[in-house]
Amino acid sequence: MVSSLFWIVPISALFALLFAWIFYKSMIVQEEGTDKMKEIASYVREGAMAYLKKQYTVVGKIFIILVALLAVLAYMGVQNPFVPVAFLTGGCFSGLCGYLGMRTATFASNRTAWAASKSLNKALQVALRSGAVMGLVVVGFGLLDISLWFLFLNGVIFTPEHMVTGLKFIGLTFVPIGIDEHQKLIEITATMITFGMGASTQALFARVGGGIFTKAADVGADLVGKIEAGIPEDDPRNPATIADNVGDNVGDVAGMGADLYESYAGSILATAALGAALPSLAGADQMKAIVAPMLVSGIGILLSIAGVYMVRTKESATPKALLNGLLLGTGGSSFLLLIVLAVMAYAGWITWGVFGAVVSGLVAGVIIGQSTEYFTSDGYKPVQGIAKQSQTGPATVIIEGIAIGMFSTWVPVLVIVAGIIAAYGFAGGFHNFAFGVYGIGFAAVGMLSTLGITLATDTFGPIADNAGGNAEMCNLPKEVREKTDALDGLGNTTAATGKGFAIGSAALTALALIAAYMEEVKMWLGRMADKSPDGFKQIGETLFYKSHAPSILHEGQKAVDLGHATIRDFVSAYDLSMFNPILLAGLFIGAMMTFVFCAMAIKAVGRNAGRMVDEVRRQFREIPGIMEGTGKPEYAKCVEIATAGAQKEMVVPALMAIIVPVLTGIVFGVPGVVGLLAGGMTTGFALASMLNNAGGAWDNAKKFIERGNYGGKKSECHKASVVGDTVGDPSKDTAGPAMNILIKLMSMVAVVMAGVTVAWSLF
Amino acid sequence: MVSSLFWIVPISALFALLFAWIFYKSMIVQEEGTDKMKEIASYVREGAMAYLKKQYTVVGKIFIILVALLAVLAYMGVQNPFVPVAFLTGGCFSGLCGYLGMRTATFASNRTAWAASKSLNKALQVALRSGAVMGLVVVGFGLLDISLWFLFLNGVIFTPEHMVTGLKFIGLTFVPIGIDEHQKLIEITATMITFGMGASTQALFARVGGGIFTKAADVGADLVGKIEAGIPEDDPRNPATIADNVGDNVGDVAGMGADLYESYAGSILATAALGAALPSLAGADQMKAIVAPMLVSGIGILLSIAGVYMVRTKESATPKALLNGLLLGTGGSSFLLLIVLAVMAYAGWITWGVFGAVVSGLVAGVIIGQSTEYFTSDGYKPVQGIAKQSQTGPATVIIEGIAIGMFSTWVPVLVIVAGIIAAYGFAGGFHNFAFGVYGIGFAAVGMLSTLGITLATDTFGPIADNAGGNAEMCNLPKEVREKTDALDGLGNTTAATGKGFAIGSAALTALALIAAYMEEVKMWLGRMADKSPDGFKQIGETLFYKSHAPSILHEGQKAVDLGHATIRDFVSAYDLSMFNPILLAGLFIGAMMTFVFCAMAIKAVGRNAGRMVDEVRRQFREIPGIMEGTGKPEYAKCVEIATAGAQKEMVVPALMAIIVPVLTGIVFGVPGVVGLLAGGMTTGFALASMLNNAGGAWDNAKKFIERGNYGGKKSECHKASVVGDTVGDPSKDTAGPAMNILIKLMSMVAVVMAGVTVAWSLF
Repeated sequence: MVSSLFWIVPISALFALLFAWIFYKSMIVQEEGTDKMKEIASYVREGAMAYLKKQYTVVGKIFIILVALLAVLAYMGVQNPFVPVAFLTGGCFSGLCGYLGMRTATFASNRTAWAASKSLNKALQVALRSGAVMGLVVVGFGLLDISLWFLFLNGVIFTPEHMVTGLKFIGLTFVPIGIDEHQKLIEITATMITFGMGASTQALFARVGGGIFTKAADVGADLVGKIEAGIPEDDPRNPATIADNVGDNVGDVAGMGADLYESYAGSILATAALGAALPSLAGADQMKAIVAPMLVSGIGILLSIAGVYMVRTKESATPKALLNGLLLGTGGSSFLLLIVLAVMAYAGWITWGVFGAVVSGLVAGVIIGQSTEYFTSDGYKPVQGIAKQSQTGPATVIIEGIAIGMFSTWVPVLVIVAGIIAAYGFAGGFHNFAFGVYGIGFAAVGMLSTLGITLATDTFGPIADNAGGNAEMCNLPKEVREKTDALDGLGNTTAATGKGFAIGSAALTALALIAAYMEEVKMWLGRMADKSPDGFKQIGETLFYKSHAPSILHEGQKAVDLGHATIRDFVSAYDLSMFNPILLAGLFIGAMMTFVFCAMAIKAVGRNAGRMVDEVRRQFREIPGIMEGTGKPEYAKCVEIATAGAQKEMVVPALMAIIVPVLTGIVFGVPGVVGLLAGGMTTGFALASMLNNAGGAWDNAKKFIERGNYGGKKSECHKASVVGDTVGDPSKDTAGPAMNILIKLMSMVAVVMAGVTVAWSLF
Repeated sequence: MVSSLFWIVPISALFALLFAWIFYKSMIVQEEGTDKMKEIASYVREGAMAYLKKQYTVVGKIFIILVALLAVLAYMGVQNPFVPVAFLTGGCFSGLCGYLGMRTATFASNRTAWAASKSLNKALQVALRSGAVMGLVVVGFGLLDISLWFLFLNGVIFTPEHMVTGLKFIGLTFVPIGIDEHQKLIEITATMITFGMGASTQALFARVGGGIFTKAADVGADLVGKIEAGIPEDDPRNPATIADNVGDNVGDVAGMGADLYESYAGSILATAALGAALPSLAGADQMKAIVAPMLVSGIGILLSIAGVYMVRTKESATPKALLNGLLLGTGGSSFLLLIVLAVMAYAGWITWGVFGAVVSGLVAGVIIGQSTEYFTSDGYKPVQGIAKQSQTGPATVIIEGIAIGMFSTWVPVLVIVAGIIAAYGFAGGFHNFAFGVYGIGFAAVGMLSTLGITLATDTFGPIADNAGGNAEMCNLPKEVREKTDALDGLGNTTAATGKGFAIGSAALTALALIAAYMEEVKMWLGRMADKSPDGFKQIGETLFYKSHAPSILHEGQKAVDLGHATIRDFVSAYDLSMFNPILLAGLFIGAMMTFVFCAMAIKAVGRNAGRMVDEVRRQFREIPGIMEGTGKPEYAKCVEIATAGAQKEMVVPALMAIIVPVLTGIVFGVPGVVGLLAGGMTTGFALASMLNNAGGAWDNAKKFIERGNYGGKKSECHKASVVGDTVGDPSKDTAGPAMNILIKLMSMVAVVMAGVTVAWSLF
């Protein structure tokens, strides 16, 4: 029986979808603008849809292969039987979010541009509410997927009467019979974490593939169009200009959405599993601990919806006032959430420790976002310093940017460390590991609880950007462009803080997954023990058993009941200390993986950009009248080439990110995997912060010069700053965000493959 | 009583010094060349000496402060009483090596140039043997310092009759009375590791300060001289040209020497301490285990001397033949070492396990060096790829270089992982931790055993480079410059492999120090236990005692005799598992430290280069007739400014590198420190490999273009490649090598401050 408060969770999820639909409808009835505006928007929409179609075809194939592999592993008894199916639901829901979000965004751009010709506030509303569609479908489908599976597993599969038939029906070799209610919930939640794998795989392609697409299109449009042909940005004569606009949607709407869908689902699932495994919890309390992270997320959804309605601005708003308008929405919903949670803690529904952990996560997210803003906004010294270095040429611009990116890592790292320790301390008081890591999970859940609105403000950026492009291509009056530019500038700020937020939540989610990994290992040890003729599984000198204790123990051996095993038992059996060279090997490999994955992403952008450059040059050469505006460029062809290239470039990095954790598990066992995940998480977090901040700083240093500083546009300083911006593009939009994906995906693969590692590892 | 074989150690050390003197003498009697050559050489020599004087003055002040602090800590009973003194001997010997090596190198440059006008082989001999002076003084003084202290502590201080008086005399609060011979050796070796701190501090200033000096001089000379004034490289009219030549000596001779002195001493000391603490060794066997790493190093010295004599080449040697000539020296001495060690293993003086560990270290060093060569030499695809990217401008050169640097990390990381696991497995068979980490220590010792000759081939590079500069400034015939260029090219190869070797040995040394750190903690736990009224020190639920077991144990508590404590007891008491969030916090901070330290080093180069640029411009403006060659530039002034700047820039990074481990120890305790060191080591290793390889690749891509590819000198491609080279300079010569120092220094500080951490930590 699930508790009655649980029903808030699926209801909130449905509310999210309902309001997503309402916001979509309220946007779609807005005026579309001139025929030209409709036409341009339709090109972008068609390009975006063509991209998605191609991507989903490739992902679909990968999914078929992975589902088949997972099914084989399940048949061999080293994988959960539900994973192949759940893998699909997670992947499909995430993909559906990407589709709906991009569709909305591409309908919204010309409507936003047209609204801007009427009123700034109206344009803000159209863009933000369209962004909220993405935000709300992500949290809605994410939470719906989780609650449906939980209800299904809890009510249909894992019931005494159905279990045997149910599992035999799908021809499986393990049959968890005779477990009590407590054990049942542990099994269910540990199984459910693995369901995040589908979302992870989808995110890999959406975020990294999207990053490769968008930068290739950007470089192609700039290099040939702006520099070689000498036509302005967003000029309709440039064949790559539509691909460039599509790229904003692909990378920043669908990519960001899939990235955060993964974090959202992963953190809730991991925290629920950690909650189920909390020691010495009676029946109802265990259910509470499982439902709590879902409940916090559900309430967060309702308050995010409220937050969307709080955003408004005056017609003559300054950039500062615009920003405050948005902050009222995000800050307001977070503030309301804290009040609700405090009431819940007072009522005993969550502990005050959990409340503290949620606060830690929320505060950490805000500070990381603010530090990103400091290091990448031209209002502060770092960006101005880069602009100043442009006086001595491109080399000093690059050196200064790298130094600033590296230096900037200190804030996010110290903040995440403080957040982790605070969450751990609040929830577990430093002496209770299980409650402590449950708290860390809650820090991630807390950071992401108001994702509905934070993702809305993130998606708002590319919509405003596209609206500006649409206005430009359709020659709307200058003041319209000024208004969309104001919104675009606001979007850049939310994008910068959003990036910090994405990597922060990725690190916390990865950490919760690493902790949950041990629950997964525990479950598999139990299954192996049950299957073995001796009734136990030996790891080092420890014999883990589930049903009955081993009768004979040799000297130095220790028997541990898995029902009461603590993290210390696993640490000791597997030697998960920093002094185990196998774990250290994993740590080295994890650090290395982040560098190599970055390198692959960067090289992929370069190669794909090369293809775009060739195609744009070909069109300028072969299409008659293209420069005079009489010949029509083949926009779709550019989109197609960038899309095909991006998907092709994804194959090797994707395989690597999935295979390395599996291989590490088989060769180096559990200690190797734990080291790999920890090394990847710590180095990846620092590296992502560096790449994001350096890239953002270079970008804004260029814009700072373009506004007339150091000689303004076309000066030598500007040329130098363009070099910085070009280097920064793949850093901040491809390699940096790729780290979010890598650290979560490696953890998720480890969780999903825990059975393989436990059964087959060499060490 | 030390064993008789031990005497080989100080004798080898003296041999090293004797041959250093012989090589010095054989160089100094060579002809000096023309008066002009003598004059130029004397400028460089004076500049180098002025630099050293200034640096040693600053380091001297820092040393006084640190010695005072260490003495206070010793008085408070949380520091070894010998450390303040030993700190000085290590620092002074390392400094003396720098002085002698630089002096030799600066005498050798004009002699090498003059020898080149006679014969290529002769020039090779002069340069290599002058380089061998540096190599041999480093290993000679390093091993002499260690053996003298060992004899002193073993024979004079830690004897039953002298101990009480000896220690009371210097007014100390801890008196290790009544320990047996076995315990005595553990105390001595654990104390001796802390002696590496002086060498570490010296290395910090020599390597990082040297890196800041050399790049500032380089940029100053290039930017104003070559680009603004349009005069060629090494032109005597350029005021910064002498500083540039001084820089080669400061960074690549003195800096590299101090870096490897630290690794050499650190790895021997750590391995000896790990050997002393091996469980269940009887008296003579314990002594063998302590002496073994010193002995391997001593034999390595003798074979290094032999190796120097093996190097020779034909007059018409191709670059390939020249390289083979050098390889005969380095490879030959390594090969002979393996034969000697095999004989020793056969005779039972070392185990076959140790033999395997030494082989692992040697092989790992060679492969890492070779991979560096692959990624940074223009004979292979990576560098050619960068050169190709110059066709699309500086931005793509930078992007490609960063990607190659990141990608290149996979080889050194996998090789070091394989080396660590092999050494651990050979020595301990995967089931004996103590023997396993002793093996890892031996891998470091093995890698560095033939340092006498490998450092000679490293120092050879800057000597040949300076010889070329001397020939250029003195207008020697073109074929002389061709010969010195051939030697210089050879030097670039050895420098590249030397860099891989330096970071590889730094990682292994740091790892051995982390393992030895626990021995240090153990020693301090014993002292705290002895001093406490209860006779034990409680960590978590474990009561560590030395003399007598605690009488009452509460439930869940465990009493552990420090005499028999294993690593598992510490792992459990301190919770040194990857799942301790405090340790994880350390891991995050360690990763972050490497980025921030890099950022500081890079920024320091930029600021210091700015000062040089101003000064060179001032001289061109104010000195009449400077461009016509009638006015004499103030070379010394440039050297002075770069020197003062470099030392000033060192203060903040130096403080940070020393304070962070201390602070981490006090706030987060032993788990935090262990995490910090592991995080710094893994991320620092990957980051250093990336920076070194990217920098080297950019440098050689530029040279590849200068040899006529893609339009050659002065083409647009060349300009783009110069940007890459300029970005690469601080990467490969300052930030990358700074990582070697950082990871060793943090470990060394942790070891030295173990007493403070054990006594005062909050967690």
